[in-house]
Amino acid sequence: MNPGSIRLYSYWRSSAAYRVRIALNLKGMPYETLPVHLARGEQHKAPFSDLNPQELVPVLLHGSRILRQSMAIMEYLDETWPTPPLMPTTARDRQRVRALAQMIACDIHPLNNLRVLQFFENTWNVPQAERDAWVRHWMQVGFEALEDTLADNPSTGTFCDGEMPTMADCCLVPQVYNAVRFGVDLAPYRTIRRINDACLALEAFEAARPENQPDAPVGN
Amino acid sequence: MNPGSIRLYSYWRSSAAYRVRIALNLKGMPYETLPVHLARGEQHKAPFSDLNPQELVPVLLHGSRILRQSMAIMEYLDETWPTPPLMPTTARDRQRVRALAQMIACDIHPLNNLRVLQFFENTWNVPQAERDAWVRHWMQVGFEALEDTLADNPSTGTFCDGEMPTMADCCLVPQVYNAVRFGVDLAPYRTIRRINDACLALEAFEAARPENQPDAPVGN
Repeated sequence: MNPGSIRLYSYWRSSAAYRVRIALNLKGMPYETLPVHLARGEQHKAPFSDLNPQELVPVLLHGSRILRQSMAIMEYLDETWPTPPLMPTTARDRQRVRALAQMIACDIHPLNNLRVLQFFENTWNVPQAERDAWVRHWMQVGFEALEDTLADNPSTGTFCDGEMPTMADCCLVPQVYNAVRFGVDLAPYRTIRRINDACLALEAFEAARPENQPDAPVGN
Repeated sequence: MNPGSIRLYSYWRSSAAYRVRIALNLKGMPYETLPVHLARGEQHKAPFSDLNPQELVPVLLHGSRILRQSMAIMEYLDETWPTPPLMPTTARDRQRVRALAQMIACDIHPLNNLRVLQFFENTWNVPQAERDAWVRHWMQVGFEALEDTLADNPSTGTFCDGEMPTMADCCLVPQVYNAVRFGVDLAPYRTIRRINDACLALEAFEAARPENQPDAPVGN
């Protein structure tokens, strides 16, 4: 299997990029990291903004193909290199895994993204403490629902779905990283914590951690 | 083909439910509408809140299966009843369609959802005019990127991808409906408008429109 050239536009702290790093590692795909410094606004400038009109990371280059949107990229990786799979086999289980991933990638993360926090700071002059409270609020609302959904379902195993990491776990771990960063109390989310720990014990997740990226600042 | 019992928890104005209504109609699947009155807070009360800990519509019941998250539901419909397809056939084109859908379903819609606007009103006391400006801002940011992506790509056809409506169109049309509702000037988005018009000429899209739902108020 020759995967061709895989290059990932990434930022060490971007949780959407983190998802794709995990997925690539789970597939055992070597890739080159092309850092985009979000805090310095590099996503809004050429050459990156020419690759993605949304001016968001990640972007994955597979040879000359330009692939955007983290969940769509993970589906592509799974369709193109099916082994090991990132998704279960039945339509029912696949629906569940996608729904878990989307609970995070649609209903938690976009509300807390850098561009949203910058809008609050620059347009509405929302103080830092209230911006942080906003972030924690949506993480808590989302994690409560996610914990209910995971704890209450026999399909939940060592990982979000059974005994194999899936796209849902690729979304979960970066979101937990963000929650810790913003000081969310994770004590009530027992199943989320258990799954997060199981994931981080795997080399694929460990290597994808923000602090292990080439663009992470020294002593971050 | 006997699809079994299909019931959709929906709200006439919910754009996430609107997506699934279109998908069901494109598949030619008969379904029963179970209205959840979001403006009256019915999503936060049993029995609905027992079905979905996220307290969001849509929820699709397929027999005894409880399916959540609109994009994950559409993928399930497409895997379970493949004809007519909601997705193109190659991994590359599927990636593009999912990315287009996610540009809307991750990066526009969740920012403008009812619960977010209620947070601004009730927690931060943001005036109506600024809340509306927030909504328009993210729609404009999102539509600019979407227009660039669609206008600039030979894969774009009568619809978002080629000559067949896909999951991307199921997301596009409800978002345009929202944009019109909030007074976004659509003049700059020529390709988006053209595709929206092509979709609404189809019976599947027409029947899914908010004003054609059983829970739409008379003379809305």
